[in-house]
Amino acid sequence: MVYITRRATFSASHRLFNPDCSDDENRQMFGKCANVNGHGHNYTLEVTVAGEPGPKTGYVLDLKILKDIIAKEVLDKVDHKHLNHDVDFLRGVIPTSENIAVAIWNALVPRIPSGVLHSVRLQETENNMVEYRGEEK
Amino acid sequence: MVYITRRATFSASHRLFNPDCSDDENRQMFGKCANVNGHGHNYTLEVTVAGEPGPKTGYVLDLKILKDIIAKEVLDKVDHKHLNHDVDFLRGVIPTSENIAVAIWNALVPRIPSGVLHSVRLQETENNMVEYRGEEK
Amino acid sequence: MVYITRRATFSASHRLFNPDCSDDENRQMFGKCANVNGHGHNYTLEVTVAGEPGPKTGYVLDLKILKDIIAKEVLDKVDHKHLNHDVDFLRGVIPTSENIAVAIWNALVPRIPSGVLHSVRLQETENNMVEYRGEEK
Amino acid sequence: MVYITRRATFSASHRLFNPDCSDDENRQMFGKCANVNGHGHNYTLEVTVAGEPGPKTGYVLDLKILKDIIAKEVLDKVDHKHLNHDVDFLRGVIPTSENIAVAIWNALVPRIPSGVLHSVRLQETENNMVEYRGEEK
Amino acid sequence: MVYITRRATFSASHRLFNPDCSDDENRQMFGKCANVNGHGHNYTLEVTVAGEPGPKTGYVLDLKILKDIIAKEVLDKVDHKHLNHDVDFLRGVIPTSENIAVAIWNALVPRIPSGVLHSVRLQETENNMVEYRGEEK
Amino acid sequence: MVYITRRATFSASHRLFNPDCSDDENRQMFGKCANVNGHGHNYTLEVTVAGEPGPKTGYVLDLKILKDIIAKEVLDKVDHKHLNHDVDFLRGVIPTSENIAVAIWNALVPRIPSGVLHSVRLQETENNMVEYRGEEK
Repeated sequence: MVYITRRATFSASHRLFNPDCSDDENRQMFGKCANVNGHGHNYTLEVTVAGEPGPKTGYVLDLKILKDIIAKEVLDKVDHKHLNHDVDFLRGVIPTSENIAVAIWNALVPRIPSGVLHSVRLQETENNMVEYRGEEK
Repeated sequence: MVYITRRATFSASHRLFNPDCSDDENRQMFGKCANVNGHGHNYTLEVTVAGEPGPKTGYVLDLKILKDIIAKEVLDKVDHKHLNHDVDFLRGVIPTSENIAVAIWNALVPRIPSGVLHSVRLQETENNMVEYRGEEK
Repeated sequence: MVYITRRATFSASHRLFNPDCSDDENRQMFGKCANVNGHGHNYTLEVTVAGEPGPKTGYVLDLKILKDIIAKEVLDKVDHKHLNHDVDFLRGVIPTSENIAVAIWNALVPRIPSGVLHSVRLQETENNMVEYRGEEK
Repeated sequence: MVYITRRATFSASHRLFNPDCSDDENRQMFGKCANVNGHGHNYTLEVTVAGEPGPKTGYVLDLKILKDIIAKEVLDKVDHKHLNHDVDFLRGVIPTSENIAVAIWNALVPRIPSGVLHSVRLQETENNMVEYRGEEK
Repeated sequence: MVYITRRATFSASHRLFNPDCSDDENRQMFGKCANVNGHGHNYTLEVTVAGEPGPKTGYVLDLKILKDIIAKEVLDKVDHKHLNHDVDFLRGVIPTSENIAVAIWNALVPRIPSGVLHSVRLQETENNMVEYRGEEK
Repeated sequence: MVYITRRATFSASHRLFNPDCSDDENRQMFGKCANVNGHGHNYTLEVTVAGEPGPKTGYVLDLKILKDIIAKEVLDKVDHKHLNHDVDFLRGVIPTSENIAVAIWNALVPRIPSGVLHSVRLQETENNMVEYRGEEK
């Protein structure tokens, strides 16, 4: 079994804000991430698929195909967008990195044609990263 | 003469939009960067000061001081902010990287206590960078 | 379950030296790392915590809190210090990357307020890294 | 147990081509990677060994020793070479990243003097990576 | 005047070899870079254009346009190719980084629609870079 | 004219301390950089040479030769050393990045066999860099 990873980037804005809480609670929970006009990031996404290389191609999955799946299911929907307003698969979700990673996992998992989705890693800044592997606690 | 550079990062959202032009013109000029709800970036800023190292300290300028100037004059105003709405020194400016770099130069140039400001370099994504050196054409 | 990671850096000096061995043995075991006057590194530290995102915040743990814990328990004690002489939690330990990572794990594990400490990764140079996950052999 | 990783780089050319298939099939499977005259990459290799730090040295394995093993068993054979023609341990193998990683694992596993080989990670471009951990499916 | 830079990458193979010299001379001049079957690199290209931001757009030149020019004039011709055999603008040239950078400059300079080409920077490995600014000695 | 750059790294410790000043003055000038037991860094050094590519080789200067010069004149003297105590060309100098870069320039300038030394760039941390180009103010 070999793990293959495709990296992609997208640029988006968001605001951390829970509409069920008061402005004060939001400021306390999210600090400057709750700024009314939002802020943004260059996100780096790493999608890892695990499987056995095919004897004919030596590929687990052609990374060109994985690239196209990520573009269609994720990048086209989030790149140069506002994550609170413009993205169908994030509707009703507070767009923390944790929640975005889980939502990207759910968007990708039915589309992987061979091998199995192993992990979705999302880097929000050079110091903050999250990873989801589909595990329940 | 030695050039010293301090690097810093900030996360902000923006929208490329010229209010004197129609929506169609804006879409034509700025493409997906004109998305109504904006998008965002992790910006990397490099500020370079040129001068002679002092005989007593061996410093052109203590980079701790340069760090504090950049924090006070730039980062506190732009980090986790919307560049079209929240930043005094960008009021009335289309926040392209070119215009932001020139505005940061203008904000910094009167604050450099020793040496002279040499350049402001701003990286918007891993593929797009601008630099301003205070030169007139 | 989601894994969240906070990255931080510190600059420190050290000397690889076992006081129970002769100078010759030390030179043989540690080569130029045993240089009498020591040498130093910019260390990159990545601390990973695993847990379930809270429904109210979408956070496993606010990375701002993890940042503060790392600053108080680790960075304040090791940054711009000599790891053989200045650090309480490394007293009596040969400061190899392996031993530093385990010591940082032990310093952090009782301080994580929610989720569980998953791994401590320490990069000593661009070519040398270690990771500790609290596993016994 | 601690995981230690040594990173190395090499520059090589290759061509993705299955001699049992027609030129058309090769173009379909491998696209521009099947270009007749080949192309090339700067590969980044990360080799991870797991073990317990020795009480005398604080090392799982001296990374200088791991560096020398990687140089002798891998880099000397692949750096500035053509992976389809010049490398004994890749003879008869389509040099996809998946297959190269498995072949490097097999070349290294009998040479690790202490600890156990945990993973071989190979980065082909800044967007494409594979990892092999010796697992059967 | 502002300098704007677009970064791109391509993967290619080459062989350093002067057909006017003997094999012995080639080995002496180029060492392992003269390997008969060639080797390859992931090249990083940075193209810098200097000009004044337009009052209507705030752009020196839309980086999307610069991206397309680089793709058409350079990447389409060199990516996943053999630089000694497959590239028209390198015919008869020993493909050292110096010569490639000058050839890319010459390919780009007539295509820049606004501003002026300032520099072509080519990184061959993480340790080797060249830059050409169109200067005669 | 083409600029060629070779990058190298070294790990060293230092202490910022002016022996002509009191301990209080040193603490005031250098803060935590004056810590009695010193601290350290992974330095990244970039040496740039400018010249015309030779018609026979296409090289300004074989980067292998530049690599060997940097190793002999700089790395062998500073890597895994204490910059205040172990380095002949830094004797009597406060080892700020500014002073180290000028000293490395002076060590290299008589050794460059073809082309001319253009710049010495020294990165002390990911946020602090200096560059010296042999210019008088």
